Amino acid sequence: MSRQKIAVLGPGSWGTALSQVLNDNGHEVRIWGNIPEQVDEINEFHTNKQYFKDIILDDDIKAYKDLSEALQGVDAILFVVPTKVTRLVAKQVAEILDHKVVIMHASKGLEPGTHERLSVILEEEIPASLRSEIVVVSGPSHAEETIVRDITLITAASKDLEAAKYVQRVFSNHYFRLYTNPDVIGVETAGALKNIIAVGAGALHGMGYGDNAKAAVITRGLAEITRLGVSLGADPLTYSGLSGVGDLIVTGTSPYSRNWRAGDALGRGEKLADIEKNMGMVIEGISTTKVAYELAQERNVYMPITTAIYQAIYEGKNIKEAIISMMTNEFRAENEWSK
Amino acid sequence: MSRQKIAVLGPGSWGTALSQVLNDNGHEVRIWGNIPEQVDEINEFHTNKQYFKDIILDDDIKAYKDLSEALQGVDAILFVVPTKVTRLVAKQVAEILDHKVVIMHASKGLEPGTHERLSVILEEEIPASLRSEIVVVSGPSHAEETIVRDITLITAASKDLEAAKYVQRVFSNHYFRLYTNPDVIGVETAGALKNIIAVGAGALHGMGYGDNAKAAVITRGLAEITRLGVSLGADPLTYSGLSGVGDLIVTGTSPYSRNWRAGDALGRGEKLADIEKNMGMVIEGISTTKVAYELAQERNVYMPITTAIYQAIYEGKNIKEAIISMMTNEFRAENEWSK
Repeated sequence: MSRQKIAVLGPGSWGTALSQVLNDNGHEVRIWGNIPEQVDEINEFHTNKQYFKDIILDDDIKAYKDLSEALQGVDAILFVVPTKVTRLVAKQVAEILDHKVVIMHASKGLEPGTHERLSVILEEEIPASLRSEIVVVSGPSHAEETIVRDITLITAASKDLEAAKYVQRVFSNHYFRLYTNPDVIGVETAGALKNIIAVGAGALHGMGYGDNAKAAVITRGLAEITRLGVSLGADPLTYSGLSGVGDLIVTGTSPYSRNWRAGDALGRGEKLADIEKNMGMVIEGISTTKVAYELAQERNVYMPITTAIYQAIYEGKNIKEAIISMMTNEFRAENEWSK
Repeated sequence: MSRQKIAVLGPGSWGTALSQVLNDNGHEVRIWGNIPEQVDEINEFHTNKQYFKDIILDDDIKAYKDLSEALQGVDAILFVVPTKVTRLVAKQVAEILDHKVVIMHASKGLEPGTHERLSVILEEEIPASLRSEIVVVSGPSHAEETIVRDITLITAASKDLEAAKYVQRVFSNHYFRLYTNPDVIGVETAGALKNIIAVGAGALHGMGYGDNAKAAVITRGLAEITRLGVSLGADPLTYSGLSGVGDLIVTGTSPYSRNWRAGDALGRGEKLADIEKNMGMVIEGISTTKVAYELAQERNVYMPITTAIYQAIYEGKNIKEAIISMMTNEFRAENEWSK
């Protein structure tokens, strides 16, 4: 395909890694960030040391402080900013855009308060005349591995198969590969909700439990986030794909994952405020837990693991109680979707 | 429930761990084994050092050399012998049994040659008048963790819910918990086929790939074993449960698993014969790969990862080619069930 101009909004670890993939594929990559020093660092030194200590980025990747400049004449825009600022940035993009583009996002969360998926926020804030159907890019991907060109397989989900295929072609190469999926609700909720289970698996580790217990919490956690996803319109099978099980394996079993690390710290008895301060990165699983807990209450979906993590984070309860309650509740069948 | 008399056929690592669980629950446990020294070791020293170096078993667990003696008056029989001898042992049981019992099994494999599930073998060899519907016990469970009473959650699957509930009650306690499931085909094929993917994930590790690649192979592997399972009559959702995803997380990400270790050795370039000799344990994933490969050919199911592992094991091909082919085949959608 011809060289595309692509704006990447958000120079976090994943935004930076995806920029490198796009640049490897011969596209013109423009990273936009709102921290001037970080933009200067990328342009002058071709590094982003907050996330990648030892990586030198290709020097044709350019960073921008001015959003209008970054968006000028682009073919596509990739949102990869934290969930809580997605709406704000989308509003700014809508004010600037003067032509139709492909809109993608690669963030994983649900908006606090409204409980909305990020693609819905983008649909709401950017007029349909200025954009494609939204394409969600999600799957098992430590940025630390993608940036060194280790093999990564993820999903491109959209209501419009052609838009998904465009994103598949833009990103795919010999180390990075995308599979299309029409189930936007499933891919997006799986990507967001799996962070809760990563926190839970980390917490079990922090408490000293073994692999059997962790696999049990991951699997029963998958069952309950699937229940919530299905109540929101997701296809349950999407949860066994790359954006569900795949991502859960990466985030739920690896100390690389900030959600897992936050859980591990919780399990060892640390307080949330200290964990967030020490991490210095956004921990999406923490706020997603609150959104999921509220959604579960609202929709009467049985989510014992999410509830326990919520109570540990926001009400100071001992997370160990969750495990005990899981082991002592009434005997159940495995695939009960309803409460 | 009242004290049950239960025969456990096969003093391997899992049979021994399950015996300990049953004994903890107050049942009379009779382990039957065909290695006289091992039987004597259990009775005299209350150890099974081939599998558990530092564990002392409860001294009321008795082991038997004589199958007739072990089966006398039992309420239930648990088969946990290697796949390839299940039919032989079932024939012996059928000759001896003189009353009706609950039949369970906790092995994971498919019979070489016939490609049959173990519950089908048990149905064929033991007359219906002498048994319940078969109950399959399967899920994420390192024996090494269960034997020290770390938390373990697994599945009890049967066509007869009452039989499954009996097994649920017999085994469950504060550290061991069973969920019932009516999908015997799904639970049994998931438990067997997931070993192939564990070999594959181990192989990637042996070749030096990272977490993203491993999660990708586990997830795409799950998709292909689900395709085969569905072609055999399984419910695809069973594959996201404890016997599928759950067990895959434990065996696909942990050096505890002998299938993972066999794959790791393959990935480092060792030969199958040496791997089996060094391991000194049955590696079900090796023979299951052959059965699955033949089934996939027969039923025209697309299984690229299984095919690559088959070719690496049985045809001496380089397993790295599998990865390259996965990255270079035509662009796909995520949930294509058909070829």
